[in-house]
Amino acid sequence: MSRTAAQSAPRRKEDARLLRGAGRFVDDVHLDRMVEGAFVRSSRAHAEIVSVDASAALAAGALLVLTAADLPFNDRPWVTRYWHAAIRGGLPRFLATDRVRFVGEPIAFVVADDRYRAEDLAALVEVAYRELPVIATVADAVRPDAPRLHPDWLGNVGAHFQQATGNADAALRGAAHRVRETFSFVRQAPLPLETRGIVADYDEARQALTVWMSTQAHYNVRQNLSSILDLPEYQVRVVCEDVGGGFGAKSRTYVEELVVSHASRRLRRPVKWIEDRFENLQATTHSRAIDVDIELGCDEGGALLALKAQLRLDMGGYVFTSGIMTAEVAAGFIANAYRIPNFRVDVSCIGTNKTPIATYRGAGAPEAAFPIECLMDLLAKRAGLTPVELRRRNLIRPADLPHELERSLAGIPLRFESGDFPALLDQALADSGYSRDVVTEADGCRTAWGLAACIEGSGFVNFETAVIRADALGNVTVTSGMSTQGQGQHTTYAQVAAETLGVDFERVDVRMGDTQLVPFGRGAFASRGAIFGANAVLGAAERLREKILAVAADMLQAPADALTIAHGRIVRAAGGDTDLDIAAIARAVSPGGSHFAGEPALEAQYVYGSDQPLTFGGAVHVARVRLDPRTGFFRVLDYFVSHDAGRALNAMIVEGQIIGGVIDGIGGALYSELIYSDEGQLVTSTMADYLVATAPDLPRVRLGHVETRPGTNPLGVRGIGEGGLIPTAAVIANALAHAIAPGATGHEAPLYTLPLRPERVYTACRLATHRLVAPP
Amino acid sequence: MSRTAAQSAPRRKEDARLLRGAGRFVDDVHLDRMVEGAFVRSSRAHAEIVSVDASAALAAGALLVLTAADLPFNDRPWVTRYWHAAIRGGLPRFLATDRVRFVGEPIAFVVADDRYRAEDLAALVEVAYRELPVIATVADAVRPDAPRLHPDWLGNVGAHFQQATGNADAALRGAAHRVRETFSFVRQAPLPLETRGIVADYDEARQALTVWMSTQAHYNVRQNLSSILDLPEYQVRVVCEDVGGGFGAKSRTYVEELVVSHASRRLRRPVKWIEDRFENLQATTHSRAIDVDIELGCDEGGALLALKAQLRLDMGGYVFTSGIMTAEVAAGFIANAYRIPNFRVDVSCIGTNKTPIATYRGAGAPEAAFPIECLMDLLAKRAGLTPVELRRRNLIRPADLPHELERSLAGIPLRFESGDFPALLDQALADSGYSRDVVTEADGCRTAWGLAACIEGSGFVNFETAVIRADALGNVTVTSGMSTQGQGQHTTYAQVAAETLGVDFERVDVRMGDTQLVPFGRGAFASRGAIFGANAVLGAAERLREKILAVAADMLQAPADALTIAHGRIVRAAGGDTDLDIAAIARAVSPGGSHFAGEPALEAQYVYGSDQPLTFGGAVHVARVRLDPRTGFFRVLDYFVSHDAGRALNAMIVEGQIIGGVIDGIGGALYSELIYSDEGQLVTSTMADYLVATAPDLPRVRLGHVETRPGTNPLGVRGIGEGGLIPTAAVIANALAHAIAPGATGHEAPLYTLPLRPERVYTACRLATHRLVAPP
Repeated sequence: MSRTAAQSAPRRKEDARLLRGAGRFVDDVHLDRMVEGAFVRSSRAHAEIVSVDASAALAAGALLVLTAADLPFNDRPWVTRYWHAAIRGGLPRFLATDRVRFVGEPIAFVVADDRYRAEDLAALVEVAYRELPVIATVADAVRPDAPRLHPDWLGNVGAHFQQATGNADAALRGAAHRVRETFSFVRQAPLPLETRGIVADYDEARQALTVWMSTQAHYNVRQNLSSILDLPEYQVRVVCEDVGGGFGAKSRTYVEELVVSHASRRLRRPVKWIEDRFENLQATTHSRAIDVDIELGCDEGGALLALKAQLRLDMGGYVFTSGIMTAEVAAGFIANAYRIPNFRVDVSCIGTNKTPIATYRGAGAPEAAFPIECLMDLLAKRAGLTPVELRRRNLIRPADLPHELERSLAGIPLRFESGDFPALLDQALADSGYSRDVVTEADGCRTAWGLAACIEGSGFVNFETAVIRADALGNVTVTSGMSTQGQGQHTTYAQVAAETLGVDFERVDVRMGDTQLVPFGRGAFASRGAIFGANAVLGAAERLREKILAVAADMLQAPADALTIAHGRIVRAAGGDTDLDIAAIARAVSPGGSHFAGEPALEAQYVYGSDQPLTFGGAVHVARVRLDPRTGFFRVLDYFVSHDAGRALNAMIVEGQIIGGVIDGIGGALYSELIYSDEGQLVTSTMADYLVATAPDLPRVRLGHVETRPGTNPLGVRGIGEGGLIPTAAVIANALAHAIAPGATGHEAPLYTLPLRPERVYTACRLATHRLVAPP
Repeated sequence: MSRTAAQSAPRRKEDARLLRGAGRFVDDVHLDRMVEGAFVRSSRAHAEIVSVDASAALAAGALLVLTAADLPFNDRPWVTRYWHAAIRGGLPRFLATDRVRFVGEPIAFVVADDRYRAEDLAALVEVAYRELPVIATVADAVRPDAPRLHPDWLGNVGAHFQQATGNADAALRGAAHRVRETFSFVRQAPLPLETRGIVADYDEARQALTVWMSTQAHYNVRQNLSSILDLPEYQVRVVCEDVGGGFGAKSRTYVEELVVSHASRRLRRPVKWIEDRFENLQATTHSRAIDVDIELGCDEGGALLALKAQLRLDMGGYVFTSGIMTAEVAAGFIANAYRIPNFRVDVSCIGTNKTPIATYRGAGAPEAAFPIECLMDLLAKRAGLTPVELRRRNLIRPADLPHELERSLAGIPLRFESGDFPALLDQALADSGYSRDVVTEADGCRTAWGLAACIEGSGFVNFETAVIRADALGNVTVTSGMSTQGQGQHTTYAQVAAETLGVDFERVDVRMGDTQLVPFGRGAFASRGAIFGANAVLGAAERLREKILAVAADMLQAPADALTIAHGRIVRAAGGDTDLDIAAIARAVSPGGSHFAGEPALEAQYVYGSDQPLTFGGAVHVARVRLDPRTGFFRVLDYFVSHDAGRALNAMIVEGQIIGGVIDGIGGALYSELIYSDEGQLVTSTMADYLVATAPDLPRVRLGHVETRPGTNPLGVRGIGEGGLIPTAAVIANALAHAIAPGATGHEAPLYTLPLRPERVYTACRLATHRLVAPP
């Protein structure tokens, strides 16, 4: 009973308000006496700051100008759960002191009556720079004469580490077939529709701070505000009721949030700062930016023997709060869903004068899937196998499970616990229309299919809290430590609570995104909403159900196991209504009621934790492209995902997440690139320059479901927020390579740098024409 | 350890913000898009409503006009904990429908951009009345030809009940000495400095209502808003962070609060209504208004034999939410602290065309103390005893305890559990300077002392919740279901938590006055803040302390009882520090910590309830007056209170409450009276007409403490919020009677109607001169 939440997809509880414009995002917060601020940001990629002069801004009416000297906490470290031991320092200050290391780095914060005046006044703050040579690329950074970004680093390498098992070099030397290529997953932006923003309201009389923020990690923000601003933790309240997308960019605390909060404390007024799109592209953390030199070998029969890779992360000017996580995930995931006995990956995180790197949907997994899945196609050609066949011979099989990856993430060993990769592959091939045939059409365009497999690790950060309470009218309130960026947790949590408790979905109200609701929580990142959030709701609902039935059993003088709950009423398990409902039980247990037992209400709380650090899922994607080889222009005609979500709490939401991921992935594969000039200036600093997928570009995405229930969590769910984009670039690159020259090699290299712009595809076409290499 | 909170008086935590203007009262709430409203109130005391025409107001720009027809809930009953079985109906509608029964009754609510426009527009709402004969007084109401106010009532008697034990008539017939007089405790207003007010913000998208209110009973308001507006209880949030005085007038839900909330729901905008002083005097419930015809008899030795009384409450036009509580309390308390074996009191609650009656500080107890304590002085004269001696012979003695009163309140038997009335009397006489001498001064003025005893029942409404939580920095947060009107609960609760936990007072933050903080609570009324609120804090702190020491014991491998906590550090009971503090324990038990045990934080919750319905305390007051018998003008020169607060959690706060009560009582005895015209119009409708005590009128109030610890609650506290004013009128009247003609009787009657205006006192002086009756 309690483990079988509805498979149905009721209407999303959140849509009525979101679709009617009643969402409450940060810029919807308007407080009495509120003022607004704007940041003065570095216009230089690399320079010493000679002076910051705010006198003109103050004379012109700025209410407050904060510079580094005004922040008593500017040297304090922030609190982060994730911190790789290899990191050698290089954290930013809250406001730059003596040096700036990327264009957009915050130098000062100017507060005025409104944003318009704040921007005008910010322009009056005079920053005098002494220019330093700019490290525009990783290649620049590792030159012997490169200037050094941070004294603690080795050269400009901010971190270096290795993951290895077996002897990859020896195994590769003995391999029958070997391929080695270099891949470049370029720098991209998570680009949430709602930029970052904060309204900070410091209440001096109560020494309490309330902030409304666009964040994925409200409890981490609370912890940082508390420890850095010296406030008791429960006197800091962080509210993020609605968040207009995060995609990993909002899963940490940023320097701006501390500065704006301090401004409110100084002014004793609420202060708002809303990031504009220019700032968002320039100063919100970037991601990807990983080059991979990777070699893969197999034996005569196509069994993979070894993988060896060097990853280079262009980490920007600083180590940001989540540090080098994407590089670590990419290293951990680079063998994908394959059994590879010998493995070595070296990771170098290299500083440049660019925006710091942090997570973006997939958080390293797409950066791993792209090289390995392209290389699998290439190796298949070398080995005389089809891409399908090579994968089939090497995929982890159900019989191999549980399968230890011999790699770790944040010190936690990675392990495939359950799943059926061969079934995913079979379904993808059977149901998509996949074919090895390349069709050349009358106009010379060619259509061809590509495929790629991926793994998705979900629920990275452990523990989540839920409280469920029933009122004297029989209504149920679910409170969660999670937050939401629109993924539908209000709906799925209501489903789990309704199903487990035996009440109607409509009677359940769900709240989250406010640290005042429950004392501990995490937030919405790492695809943890179902695995941690929903399992916490399940645990609380089961406890509450037990309490209800125990009281009902006493009131009815019947054994508790002879009773159950349906539509909020206590009914006999053997059939037959009673005169009790949940409302009556709530009244009975409340203070003064017949069954009061020391608790203030009919409620239960549950903190869900798990020994399993990650729940792995898998997917196989296939796509069909239509390529014009005369121009390199192409369209993705068809996209099919065979995936395993474990139990789908709400099929519509699961499918929406996956389709959204694919679309994000297509944008990342085809269009998106953050381009810097040699001077370290971001060239793609508007939405006219930084391109993303738009509806007319996109195929219909079809889905196939393979359901295996993981044993990692009671609900048997797998996170599905990121998988949609993990193999997307590889699928498309493989389809293009196949369309250009089926079975042939030698033309693929231009396809190994993203995005797959027509000029790159055209170059691949030209290579295929001029030096076509016959299949072995 | 845990039962010995500091006797010291640290600085009040709330004063820093209150004294600096950082209190947050309702009118301090300014919300985005907020509009304001004004009520159209009846200008007639008794009339049929022929029509209500809002068209002119709407045409002139009113955003909304609500009349009875617009309220889907206008016939719904409200939720109240207290409801006397004798009540025969007569509840008001939320807005008047066909009839109005007092001047000020709400008829319509008009919303506009601001209050100024709302008032102008409210004046455009045309109400056509058909006048009915006005019942201006209780005497009018009981005339056979009086119009009937409510069909369910018997005549105009809305409730009638009796409390009796023994045979009062027979005992009085056999008494050696009997006195019988009629007393009038006139209609008065609680008059909080902050008038009522509400900001209602209905969130249509979330079907959630938040109200900021000036209330003493935020949970009762939540329950009413939920049940009457059909909202899940936990989707209603009531916030009353600071309340500028309540004095009983805000301890229930009013009709206006439902109407304003409905207006917000209709407009989908926040709506504010702040009661002005005129409305406050006219439409906030009144109190007192009890006449008592009372007879008392004793034997030759002065032992009281019987008491017989008829109470008549002028209940106004309706039964309000707390119904006839003051009449019931007055009946229950009329024998005061005396052993009287035969007792009968008949209570009639009679309707008139005036504002409904509800509670005001003391809530019936002053109305009882005034007649019995004046009559004790009179009876003493008849029996040839001093007032002290008669009291001494009849006071409940420690040997009599526990003493059942043979009377009940809200169905709960009343019982003195502990105390020492003789000691209070002794202390009052010894330490005040009390003397029986009347001093005539050179200018003809006379000074004389009076005295009176009283009982104070505190903590009437059972159950209160507290949650205590410690953060990872070692700070402690106390959350309570209580609210505050400035009585200092933030301070006393912090003291109890600090002392019990062994942390520094400065590290404790206390929050209350917000239904979102804890799921169940009550509020600040009935002097329950120490008895229920502080004992709940104690219970939670003891639980938290146990948790902390259990974890510390495990971490230190020491028995828990060998450890204790001092200044937030775990120390060995035998002496010696450890390396643990509460911060470390909080981190250990938090999710992911070494001692995580399924709870989200280091916290404990406690709902304090008690089988004891009331904790009784006692006091003896003495006062010296200086009377000019030629004019009747007098001053209170000296005032001394001997009281028993049980354990005083904070001596300064206890004393402040008592002194405040005395001052309130002096105002009520000397100045305050709500006067109606024969047409039922309130004549005293401004602060220039309705008088209260002001600083230049007041004596210094001195206090003496007798401490007996009640066994009714773990902290051993007694409530002291009301006692200060309970016997005040009697003390002064007795002093005046003595000053006018020591030992003589026959001149007192003018002193038995409040307030003790000079003309009444002068009349008493004239009576004493002209028909002096010798003592028997």
